[in-house]
Amino acid sequence: MLGSRAIEYANASADTRAVFDDIKATRNTDEVTNFWKYIAGDEKTLRRTWESVKEVMSPGALDPLVKELVYIAVSVTNNCGYCIASHRASALKAGMTEPQFNELLAVVGMANETNRLAIGHRIPIDRQFED
Amino acid sequence: MLGSRAIEYANASADTRAVFDDIKATRNTDEVTNFWKYIAGDEKTLRRTWESVKEVMSPGALDPLVKELVYIAVSVTNNCGYCIASHRASALKAGMTEPQFNELLAVVGMANETNRLAIGHRIPIDRQFED
Amino acid sequence: MLGSRAIEYANASADTRAVFDDIKATRNTDEVTNFWKYIAGDEKTLRRTWESVKEVMSPGALDPLVKELVYIAVSVTNNCGYCIASHRASALKAGMTEPQFNELLAVVGMANETNRLAIGHRIPIDRQFED
Amino acid sequence: MLGSRAIEYANASADTRAVFDDIKATRNTDEVTNFWKYIAGDEKTLRRTWESVKEVMSPGALDPLVKELVYIAVSVTNNCGYCIASHRASALKAGMTEPQFNELLAVVGMANETNRLAIGHRIPIDRQFED
Amino acid sequence: MLGSRAIEYANASADTRAVFDDIKATRNTDEVTNFWKYIAGDEKTLRRTWESVKEVMSPGALDPLVKELVYIAVSVTNNCGYCIASHRASALKAGMTEPQFNELLAVVGMANETNRLAIGHRIPIDRQFED
Amino acid sequence: MLGSRAIEYANASADTRAVFDDIKATRNTDEVTNFWKYIAGDEKTLRRTWESVKEVMSPGALDPLVKELVYIAVSVTNNCGYCIASHRASALKAGMTEPQFNELLAVVGMANETNRLAIGHRIPIDRQFED
Repeated sequence: MLGSRAIEYANASADTRAVFDDIKATRNTDEVTNFWKYIAGDEKTLRRTWESVKEVMSPGALDPLVKELVYIAVSVTNNCGYCIASHRASALKAGMTEPQFNELLAVVGMANETNRLAIGHRIPIDRQFED
Repeated sequence: MLGSRAIEYANASADTRAVFDDIKATRNTDEVTNFWKYIAGDEKTLRRTWESVKEVMSPGALDPLVKELVYIAVSVTNNCGYCIASHRASALKAGMTEPQFNELLAVVGMANETNRLAIGHRIPIDRQFED
Repeated sequence: MLGSRAIEYANASADTRAVFDDIKATRNTDEVTNFWKYIAGDEKTLRRTWESVKEVMSPGALDPLVKELVYIAVSVTNNCGYCIASHRASALKAGMTEPQFNELLAVVGMANETNRLAIGHRIPIDRQFED
Repeated sequence: MLGSRAIEYANASADTRAVFDDIKATRNTDEVTNFWKYIAGDEKTLRRTWESVKEVMSPGALDPLVKELVYIAVSVTNNCGYCIASHRASALKAGMTEPQFNELLAVVGMANETNRLAIGHRIPIDRQFED
Repeated sequence: MLGSRAIEYANASADTRAVFDDIKATRNTDEVTNFWKYIAGDEKTLRRTWESVKEVMSPGALDPLVKELVYIAVSVTNNCGYCIASHRASALKAGMTEPQFNELLAVVGMANETNRLAIGHRIPIDRQFED
Repeated sequence: MLGSRAIEYANASADTRAVFDDIKATRNTDEVTNFWKYIAGDEKTLRRTWESVKEVMSPGALDPLVKELVYIAVSVTNNCGYCIASHRASALKAGMTEPQFNELLAVVGMANETNRLAIGHRIPIDRQFED
């Protein structure tokens, strides 16, 4: 059966290798992770996603560690196991401590709880939040 | 029809007023927001939720502004309009700039996109993320 | 522009009227709600959905009020404003009290919170839950 | 412990066997998949779900392959691993190519991203979309 | 790599042991489940979550079994495997029968379906639900 | 208060105007929709998102109308009102008929229902889907 499978560097096209090389250089690693190998089945998606992630996750108005924490928060809310594991690793590399990870999950849990209280009561938005 | 409705300070019980007073003192405001007024229909939920939010959102291993950004990220992913409006206001008060808000949404959007690529390809977690 | 619009009884086909009549008889009301009028643009969907809802929501192993509470819990988690409003009304008709509604939202909020703690920590399932 | 378990043809009631036989005949296969075996613990749910799926997924205004692609898109957004695997198989049988699957995931990812940008900015709906 | 890991009683602090002891006494079991062991990495989260769950899940306006059913409904909608398994076990202990579990999933499935029909057609809320 | 607001062409920078001009030329319209005006607060996000949407939604292995249907399916599942309205309009422009829209919602509803049955029963993936 046709299936999603990893494209390894050895079997990759020149275009795919160019993206893989840029990932390795940018991240200073020897190996690209499964995410990139699996989406490489479509070269356009690979290139576009990498260019976008590189732009969005680079330092800007927000600190790189803050961006990783936000990525984890979204991945936990969406229940993406792969994304939680990989961005938790990136966050640790970027300096996240264990107490910070625990506190992050506490905030994520609380936000998911109060989101439902607000939705369930169909609470109207306060005037001052709209001005 | 029995309905979710705001409990105003003037009509509140002594217990509810005590929580409202603590919210106003802690946040240094004259008025509690609709969220607290609507969940006050159940005094136990009001007290428990306020004590929990106070504990979780106070400074700790993570900066208060970072916690607000995470709150917004979850609320956007869950599509809670009230929560986006109210925590955007809290984040602005805590120092969030407009470029930071825009960058936050860019990260939230990207995380939601790559979450689905990882889920759709059913990508196995890399060994190094498990060690 | 072609748009989702309500099919009123006066303009409905004989097949649609037959379903509307059954809804009114089963629920003992004079009028069908917007949900049925809007999905009536497709007669097959109207009939299939009504037959399914009638089967699923009728008394069985679970009490009708319990089923309405579960319906609200799902609708709050999915953030369906229409569904929260309409099933809250059905639940009130079936005997739900205001303290029960408040307690329901407390459970829904707590479940959404602990779901994320379990997902975020990627907690393995205890052996005893699998036996 | 009472548990969700597969109902095999050999142990099934006459009513369950009748549904299993219809699934096998309609899909021209020798075996029903786990989905049907697991929901067969409740005969009414088995019969209703099968009749509904048969009606909804049969050729109509939309092509069967398009329906399978939509099923995958929803299953990826909801993160249902079983559903992604089974409907990916059905889509391949219905003629989906590997480039189509990859492009499908690209659209699903992009939609999940722009959904959050629209939600986060609380963008008002343009007049022309309402007319 | 720093990782989420279970805190066992033998290695736990006095504060953590006190919470574990209360869980065991309240639930009349010899062992706390993985959920509590994994969130114990942060003592404040452990204590707050336990106190909250104890308050929310104790008998009140709703029956304890109804609360467990609602917990399962939310966990299924959010796709939290751990939570489905653990609250299914709690529900069985509280008296849930196999037909009740099957009927619960039928309601959860139907609610998820009709939620999307209401959302997709952008159905306006009927006047009578607002009064 | 700093707020998400539309950037109108008249007040836009040269870079933003260049993207707006490309949107208008590509889509053959006189006006960009609110989506682009609101995300234009961050020029990088505007340009990246437009380039990505243009690449992903252009004809390829999948037909443009199919892509719009998939976009609607995701937006309904995520409950993004703006996205449902805008992509419904794009789909109608691309040739979607009213019966196709209704059938699309029927498939989306059914997928959301069966997703939860599969998740709730924690159904193991059939061997043949993995080969």
